Amino acid sequence: MIAEVLSTGDEVRSGSIADTNASHIARELERVGFFVSRHGCVGDDEPLLSEVLKDISRRADVAVVTGGLGPTSDDITALAVAQAAGVGLFENGNALNMIENYFKSGNRPINPSNRKMAFLPVGVEVLKNDAGTAPGFVLKINRCLFYFLPGVPREMEVMLANEVLPRVIQIKDKTPWVYPTRNITTFGLPESEVNERMKPFSQAFPELIIGFRATFPEIHIKVYGQGENEKALNLQMESAVKWVAEKMGEYVLSLNGESMEAVVGRLLLAKKATLALAESCTGGLIASRITDVAGSSGYFLFSGVTYSNDAKVKVLGVPPETLEKYGAVHEETARQMAMGARALAGATYGLSTSGIAGPDGGTDEKPVGTVCIGLTTPESAQGWRFQFSGGGRFRNKTLFAVKALDLLRRELMGNKQ
Amino acid sequence: MIAEVLSTGDEVRSGSIADTNASHIARELERVGFFVSRHGCVGDDEPLLSEVLKDISRRADVAVVTGGLGPTSDDITALAVAQAAGVGLFENGNALNMIENYFKSGNRPINPSNRKMAFLPVGVEVLKNDAGTAPGFVLKINRCLFYFLPGVPREMEVMLANEVLPRVIQIKDKTPWVYPTRNITTFGLPESEVNERMKPFSQAFPELIIGFRATFPEIHIKVYGQGENEKALNLQMESAVKWVAEKMGEYVLSLNGESMEAVVGRLLLAKKATLALAESCTGGLIASRITDVAGSSGYFLFSGVTYSNDAKVKVLGVPPETLEKYGAVHEETARQMAMGARALAGATYGLSTSGIAGPDGGTDEKPVGTVCIGLTTPESAQGWRFQFSGGGRFRNKTLFAVKALDLLRRELMGNKQ
Repeated sequence: MIAEVLSTGDEVRSGSIADTNASHIARELERVGFFVSRHGCVGDDEPLLSEVLKDISRRADVAVVTGGLGPTSDDITALAVAQAAGVGLFENGNALNMIENYFKSGNRPINPSNRKMAFLPVGVEVLKNDAGTAPGFVLKINRCLFYFLPGVPREMEVMLANEVLPRVIQIKDKTPWVYPTRNITTFGLPESEVNERMKPFSQAFPELIIGFRATFPEIHIKVYGQGENEKALNLQMESAVKWVAEKMGEYVLSLNGESMEAVVGRLLLAKKATLALAESCTGGLIASRITDVAGSSGYFLFSGVTYSNDAKVKVLGVPPETLEKYGAVHEETARQMAMGARALAGATYGLSTSGIAGPDGGTDEKPVGTVCIGLTTPESAQGWRFQFSGGGRFRNKTLFAVKALDLLRRELMGNKQ
Repeated sequence: MIAEVLSTGDEVRSGSIADTNASHIARELERVGFFVSRHGCVGDDEPLLSEVLKDISRRADVAVVTGGLGPTSDDITALAVAQAAGVGLFENGNALNMIENYFKSGNRPINPSNRKMAFLPVGVEVLKNDAGTAPGFVLKINRCLFYFLPGVPREMEVMLANEVLPRVIQIKDKTPWVYPTRNITTFGLPESEVNERMKPFSQAFPELIIGFRATFPEIHIKVYGQGENEKALNLQMESAVKWVAEKMGEYVLSLNGESMEAVVGRLLLAKKATLALAESCTGGLIASRITDVAGSSGYFLFSGVTYSNDAKVKVLGVPPETLEKYGAVHEETARQMAMGARALAGATYGLSTSGIAGPDGGTDEKPVGTVCIGLTTPESAQGWRFQFSGGGRFRNKTLFAVKALDLLRRELMGNKQ
């Protein structure tokens, strides 16, 4: 069955905000077995919206439309729908109850502009909004069932899950439908090389779809299936994932969508090992990513974000002679920093970064994009230097952080750089 | 003049990736004085794309279409364009030159699938792609000038700026056109309250447009103008910004779009002051945000990311009795942490966080969302406790970090909490 997605509102139309609703809705509709043939976006323009709704009503079976349900004067969706369906607007009792209850539960007074949200086209079914004030509604125009939802992503997502998907699954054919997805995370190969290695995929697995998502600097390979035969699809999926894993080899982080920091955390936990960091150029970003993972207090002890040389000496115990002889950005300094952090925190592993994230501070010998990384284990203490090119400050910090974590990951897997 | 934006590709259509190109293109076209009336998105479906192009060709003056120009079999844009325009596809000499030069400059061999990108509809003008292999092209169909660009955002953005905007400005009327934008960043008021305070804006400044962008937890208020009279627009803009600043008061971070960390950095620099951090629940995020600002080494010395109690004692010198008596999440502990970081690094200010970001670790007395913040200055040492609700781990960390920076910002401005 054919579905369409339509976003409304001048903020989206004019590009003032990016339309993240459309991709979310499309993905969810495809997951339950619809084919999303188009998305569209129009502004707060009643005649145009009404015309576009009429166009959609003649070519789609289901459409999800977001935005324009609120209390302000530029919220014109109900008007446009009434126009497109050729019906009038009336105060809807169910909608008014929901709005009144919402305000009662928050002990807030209701004002006339809130009551306006209850004026809906005749014949609609009202959809509950548990996350906000504006109710949604459903109306069939020509061949198409339209679901109108608020544009606030938080409200839209809850209503799509609770109110829309359970209803649209009913109107689809009754065959159970499965839509497995697998996400293989990778790091270290450029996108073009990943593309090259994945080229034979579609021939090898013609019933599956492969997609790529660059979550800089990781590249996520997604494999999708959809159909009625769950067992056959799952078997295909398993061999497809195995195929991808073989082609990507040591660059695979996880076959289950885990991020670099989640993988490192899992490996540390499995070894009952702990980690201490010493961060200069990454400025706390490695620690912040590590602690984005729930349960990271089980293995993460400490990061010394030693931006000043003084802090490198005082906190981490880097000998002043090392800094004098080699400078702050050097593999030996990084090695000493990692040793210092490990010793201070009593950790199993110590990992450090010192480099030049830019935009200033580069030299001919150590240009912007240079990073030195130190890694100490119970058995060894190493230092490396890498040179990356072509990124801004934020991009460099991110790349440095993930590169350092990758060295630790490879160490933990016994799979050295 | 009327413009439209069209994104193509199954990855966008099916919601596998969000369409960030459309908002970027719409914003840029509006900035140079076009009215973007619609966006659309269709998949890699030649008959449908051809039909949609024909529709657009009858109602818009300019359209920017992205995607489907690459070397693979699902890149069908040139075919669909030829179909819509009723012309044939031929190898385009200019396009082939560009592709060959691109490969030559990278010392890479050119293969047949790369040559395919030079097969373009008859009559097009070729657009140079400095950031990748696939050239773009321009073709007029009916009343509309179509600009076809690659879907890779990095390539698209460069080509839009260098190849498309300079051309479309020419076809617009010759009057100089200005489009001032101002971005006022705020923190601390909920979105509904910001909306309420900004309600009278449109009546007060009917020729300007106001928009909001929640960059959690900051709220950015954007004021746009567009027209021919630069001087009058700039005067209006100045008084509009002043009006917004008055209504938002102490919640304004910057009238020039600066983030919280940039404002704090500017205030520290102005005072020739330095900063040390002690982070527990924020896990390095404050340091990472501070060091996202270029030049932060001029005022940022150190952050001790002390996730373990042991590190709080050993590195920051928090007395073990304090931890025993109050626990890690307490205003007194936070105060001691801030004092310890400040003393260790010899900084002017010390700022600390200790709290419960979740999802686990909450208690009845200190539920998830509790954060204690310490701030020490040359004159004082304070500790606070705040209770936020309803966020996941990442959201809580972000809110805690920005709240701590806001307390420092208010201290630096002499404008206490």
